[in-house]
Amino acid sequence: MSAAGGRGARDASRLIRTANRYRVLRQVLADGPVSRPALAAATGLSRATVATVTGELHRRGLVRVAGFEDSAGGRPAALLAMDPVGGALIGVDMAETYVHAELFDLTLRVLATVRLPLAPGEDGPELVVERTAEAVSRVRERGAPPGVPVLGVGVAMPGMVDREGGVSVFAANWDWHGVPLLGLLARHIPYRLYLDNPLRATTVAELWFGAARGRRDAVVVNLGTGVGAGLALGGAVHRGASNSAGEWGHTTLVHGGRSCRCGRHGCVESYVGAPGIIRTLTEVAPGSALLRPGDQMGTIAALAAGSAAGDPVARRVLEVCADQLGAAVADLVNLLNPEVVVLSSWVAREWGAPLLEAVRGAVGRYALGRPLASAEIVLSPVEGDPVSLGAATFALEGALA
Amino acid sequence: MSAAGGRGARDASRLIRTANRYRVLRQVLADGPVSRPALAAATGLSRATVATVTGELHRRGLVRVAGFEDSAGGRPAALLAMDPVGGALIGVDMAETYVHAELFDLTLRVLATVRLPLAPGEDGPELVVERTAEAVSRVRERGAPPGVPVLGVGVAMPGMVDREGGVSVFAANWDWHGVPLLGLLARHIPYRLYLDNPLRATTVAELWFGAARGRRDAVVVNLGTGVGAGLALGGAVHRGASNSAGEWGHTTLVHGGRSCRCGRHGCVESYVGAPGIIRTLTEVAPGSALLRPGDQMGTIAALAAGSAAGDPVARRVLEVCADQLGAAVADLVNLLNPEVVVLSSWVAREWGAPLLEAVRGAVGRYALGRPLASAEIVLSPVEGDPVSLGAATFALEGALA
Repeated sequence: MSAAGGRGARDASRLIRTANRYRVLRQVLADGPVSRPALAAATGLSRATVATVTGELHRRGLVRVAGFEDSAGGRPAALLAMDPVGGALIGVDMAETYVHAELFDLTLRVLATVRLPLAPGEDGPELVVERTAEAVSRVRERGAPPGVPVLGVGVAMPGMVDREGGVSVFAANWDWHGVPLLGLLARHIPYRLYLDNPLRATTVAELWFGAARGRRDAVVVNLGTGVGAGLALGGAVHRGASNSAGEWGHTTLVHGGRSCRCGRHGCVESYVGAPGIIRTLTEVAPGSALLRPGDQMGTIAALAAGSAAGDPVARRVLEVCADQLGAAVADLVNLLNPEVVVLSSWVAREWGAPLLEAVRGAVGRYALGRPLASAEIVLSPVEGDPVSLGAATFALEGALA
Repeated sequence: MSAAGGRGARDASRLIRTANRYRVLRQVLADGPVSRPALAAATGLSRATVATVTGELHRRGLVRVAGFEDSAGGRPAALLAMDPVGGALIGVDMAETYVHAELFDLTLRVLATVRLPLAPGEDGPELVVERTAEAVSRVRERGAPPGVPVLGVGVAMPGMVDREGGVSVFAANWDWHGVPLLGLLARHIPYRLYLDNPLRATTVAELWFGAARGRRDAVVVNLGTGVGAGLALGGAVHRGASNSAGEWGHTTLVHGGRSCRCGRHGCVESYVGAPGIIRTLTEVAPGSALLRPGDQMGTIAALAAGSAAGDPVARRVLEVCADQLGAAVADLVNLLNPEVVVLSSWVAREWGAPLLEAVRGAVGRYALGRPLASAEIVLSPVEGDPVSLGAATFALEGALA
């Protein structure tokens, strides 16, 4: 107990220094060019702290003086902005059927994109690692201006990830168990590497650039083939005891209900993950023309187009799914009392506004009044691929730590 | 967004000072008499910080020098302990059928207890406030040594509470809406008052004196007539945007299942709250001799005694309830990845070890491997009434803030 307390205290003071750097840099990213006094006002940090932090950021080449403020007498205040050529960041989204790498400048603008396909069966660690290294090398060649250093590469890998150890503990899609991924990648990639999973990548992307920015407590609901809830509590990612917090997809929505790929029954994911939604479609209208056999994304796109066009089957599926999703999101609202719930990932993006509207209605039916009143529900405002953006942000955070 | 960020930053530096005081005082409570170097080692704080904090605590009369350490040469180190006569704290548990007040010394030892009954229908704010003031006055007279100041009174009030505003936003048991409770109490009680609900009181009790002490992420599962999950994340209570986090009792266990008193269906509480357990008993064995009509506590006691004695009906009810509870606790484990889950409140205490064992088994069936591996599940080790202890701790925290 004493040891845990001690760890906590040392962590706390290191974390607050890192949090100050994050806070200042997020503000420079949002408002730059911006003066130090304006940064102090916007972040609530003291001018002395802002001076210390911006000094560090300047020495590391992350931030530059981009101009001076007009002032009525006295010394004009320097305006700070991210230094676009201070470094480049690479974010990698390792998915089941492709490896997607993006190269960003320090304003997190995309400079280049490379996507290499993975054929079915191309799932051995060595092959996936080679493909990843190739994508990183090609995106680097294609996008980075000469002389600009790559500050780091963030890799988002599906499943349970031991972030400190750099190990893919378990990945259901490739049946990986305990693969020392960071070590394998380090043999091929000459940059600092950061590993985590796509759920945490999208959460970090929302914290830095999306709907969770400046919010104390936010939940990022990822709706894709799998589903999960990234938790941003107290302005930082809540990881839990073993970096596996957020497994909302495998919480129970219907005790004893549908069987789930995790081996249990009635999980949220078995209803509102893409395969669950498609199963609902086959229950509502067996043999529907909306069904694209073997094509999950195509079927969801057909459902989205259908519900927008007033197709009754698509409308009914939307209604059922939004009701289930609303009940499950209401659970997050009741339990965590967040300021904002962000719907993210490809199913949310594909279905868009009609899904948002129906989910808001359902959450209104299921959540308790007080937590409901303080919970905004929005679609992710992050443009581009939030997973590679978030992965690149791991590298930015790493450069600040 | 800037404003929220600013608030966050100022909060952060104030919170870290308060957290340091909490940390030091928790250690003094646990280990006192204890030297400053030992406190620094146990808390991980610097010796300078410990000196500052203990100086403050000493000046406020909370901590005293209780002796000196033998030392091999050099100046002997002072040993610090709580000063039992430095102040008294009162904790009040306002329940549906009684007002229970306890007076504590600064080591949180109970000095006196007063319980005043509330008859059915005695539920108007004025009457409940008068009864509370009477209990506080009587427990003060009975227990506090002459000259010892009462540092504060913590009041735990069921339902949704606006802690900052001192308002009972909604209390289902008495059908209160927006009652300005703290203002009403302040007319009768001449001490500093702190208001929150029983869920947060038991969570704070576990953080200071129970199974969550020294843990980073803990969940306190309250099993009574109502059920809830107090969240202690990052070593502090997670309150959420409007102090209503933890409404786990009204998360969905069976979509479209049993009707719940909240007006929704399939809530966790409708299965594992005491009335839900009794409903399961009537489903398993209608007309069972274990049923004590109109006596919730008596029926749960009969079930506990029956399952311990091998009664097949009681065993079956335990099995069904533990399965439902296990699925719902597994949801907390999957979502939050805590180090420890504490089963608290009267149903957990009454049923004890057989419930714990059955719940551990069920959580093992429902939780995912990685979060399961890091989650210990225990019965609350807090002795006495955790609600009045936690309420008194609100007053102690208030004295430190």
